[in-house]
Amino acid sequence: MNDQLFSADYLKNFTSEVFRHFGINKTDAEQAADVLSRSDLRGIDSHGVARLHTYFEMLELGRINPKPDIKILREKSSVATVDGDNGLGLVVGPWANGIAMDKAEKHGSGWVSVRNTNHFGIAGYYPLKALERDLIGWAMTNATKLVAPLWGAERMLGTNPIAIAFPGYQEPPIVIDMATSAVAYGKIEIALRKKEKVPIGWVVDRAGRDTANPQDMIEGGAQLPLGSNREMGGHKGYALASMVDILCSVLSGANWGPFAPPFALRQEIPTRSVGKGIGHFFGALQIDGFIDKEEFKKQIDEWIRVFRKTKPAPGTNGPLIPGDPERAAEAIRSKEGIPLLKPVIDDLLDISAKTGIPFKNP
Amino acid sequence: MNDQLFSADYLKNFTSEVFRHFGINKTDAEQAADVLSRSDLRGIDSHGVARLHTYFEMLELGRINPKPDIKILREKSSVATVDGDNGLGLVVGPWANGIAMDKAEKHGSGWVSVRNTNHFGIAGYYPLKALERDLIGWAMTNATKLVAPLWGAERMLGTNPIAIAFPGYQEPPIVIDMATSAVAYGKIEIALRKKEKVPIGWVVDRAGRDTANPQDMIEGGAQLPLGSNREMGGHKGYALASMVDILCSVLSGANWGPFAPPFALRQEIPTRSVGKGIGHFFGALQIDGFIDKEEFKKQIDEWIRVFRKTKPAPGTNGPLIPGDPERAAEAIRSKEGIPLLKPVIDDLLDISAKTGIPFKNP
Repeated sequence: MNDQLFSADYLKNFTSEVFRHFGINKTDAEQAADVLSRSDLRGIDSHGVARLHTYFEMLELGRINPKPDIKILREKSSVATVDGDNGLGLVVGPWANGIAMDKAEKHGSGWVSVRNTNHFGIAGYYPLKALERDLIGWAMTNATKLVAPLWGAERMLGTNPIAIAFPGYQEPPIVIDMATSAVAYGKIEIALRKKEKVPIGWVVDRAGRDTANPQDMIEGGAQLPLGSNREMGGHKGYALASMVDILCSVLSGANWGPFAPPFALRQEIPTRSVGKGIGHFFGALQIDGFIDKEEFKKQIDEWIRVFRKTKPAPGTNGPLIPGDPERAAEAIRSKEGIPLLKPVIDDLLDISAKTGIPFKNP
Repeated sequence: MNDQLFSADYLKNFTSEVFRHFGINKTDAEQAADVLSRSDLRGIDSHGVARLHTYFEMLELGRINPKPDIKILREKSSVATVDGDNGLGLVVGPWANGIAMDKAEKHGSGWVSVRNTNHFGIAGYYPLKALERDLIGWAMTNATKLVAPLWGAERMLGTNPIAIAFPGYQEPPIVIDMATSAVAYGKIEIALRKKEKVPIGWVVDRAGRDTANPQDMIEGGAQLPLGSNREMGGHKGYALASMVDILCSVLSGANWGPFAPPFALRQEIPTRSVGKGIGHFFGALQIDGFIDKEEFKKQIDEWIRVFRKTKPAPGTNGPLIPGDPERAAEAIRSKEGIPLLKPVIDDLLDISAKTGIPFKNP
């Protein structure tokens, strides 16, 4: 693929400068850059600097507020609703997640529903921050419609991810970060680029029929929820996506379901608004509120060791622990750098040309 | 199938009397009977009086404590850990769920992890109770091992269900209650009874190979997690089951993963104990802590109406709303009665003979 390698710090500094170009303050710009950088480090290329050009366009057109007045609209000791004032999700998300963590440290748990926000990067970023404070962290977000409910023939829900992480003692943490669709949209994009077929159960065409051609999904079709069809549990993926949608957006007063505004410029704009922006939902649990923290972390170590010893299925090395692939990527990329595809580099060069912020191939 | 119909109240009274026979107090016996009855009413036959004989045997052999001293081991304002003193999960569960709901009303949310407990019936029962108090309710439980992690060839996790419910205003509530396995174990039992094949992706044999023969699962094989294989998202079902396992059992100090003790007498007893009993996890969110309650419920109505209007996939009537099938069953069965199969009636007659509590065919 002729990928070129860039150091994570170089890309992070560039990203931060781009955000500052729009008048975003230094702290927020660095925070936003950190979310994208962590995604690249963890191998989730679709959510890292590959998305910077989209944020850039949205900021340039004034679709995202660079100086949001983020505030708590309503709260009780362990819960709150935050209005992100149409700021970058990469700034609003960490702020709201911070409220959830503060509440957890005071009251045992903290739960924050967020409205009037935008795409917040990888969901897994937020529980990783909770781990730094020895908390169990959760994050969810709704997103632009891509997924059909089971038995539906049109897009009604986003890929609505759920992330949660548990700290280990000597073992690395368990980090779950999963879309509630059968696959991430990125996998369909890859098949499109390579002109390959996709497995039946990933997408349907515009009539709601199963198809192996990813182009059918692009042309008015939809992704399928985790479980894909009734027999294999497609109603469960649909139910999980609905849960995420409601906690993030009905509970906060954001746009739910098919009315979630698009992340990017060239996506369809919903004909109706039922709230403000998209929505997130953050949670944090203080382990000491339940059990001795050290005891918990030692049991997590044991859990990990027991599951690693599971008898392997034929043709495999046995089960992974959730978070293994991302941690492996981070270990390599933090040393060797982030590989970027030429189209991504071209996007960054375009931003550089338009803003005057230098960007050089290594 | 020659089902006979029994009124829900008749079965509930019989169930309650059976529990009282073991010295369980009237309030607890009625509570336990209510959980089983609600399962029968909602059409989840596997978790209703069909299980009474198992509870009966466990009580008779002293495996379950009829007079538990259920208590809070540790708490902060919005969280707690409960020890169920090896009582009926049907009694411990509602007690702990009550703590979660009380905390939610005072502090915006309540989260209770429970150890030293037993099978708690349908997970959906608990959020239904939360709806009666206008709360969003959650429930999870771990259970005897049946499910292999993705790429595993042995049982390591239970079917670990997740339930959550959201109240509507004029529309009925959205009620999610789903196992994190590809299918409920009950569906495999049905295929066994009818000597039918099952779809590839439900179970593996003792070597971890895909199989359509449900008998292969019984003979040392395992169920597969939601998503079934890597391509269709089996790592996601495995991650969800792990999340449930950890929240219920590592966080409370119960037996996690493959060490969860069996629900029934004839199931294998784990060779190792890492905690006490099995574990549950309950949560409740007070809507008013986030947004005006009436506004939330009206938006849920609108959510339901919008999703009901989704363009249907070919050969379907379009998407259901989570909870539709159970509510439909409840409407019919609360009028017409609960249909019981002959083997279930025989079990109840056996209990009747052994306890002297009268049970008559209608």
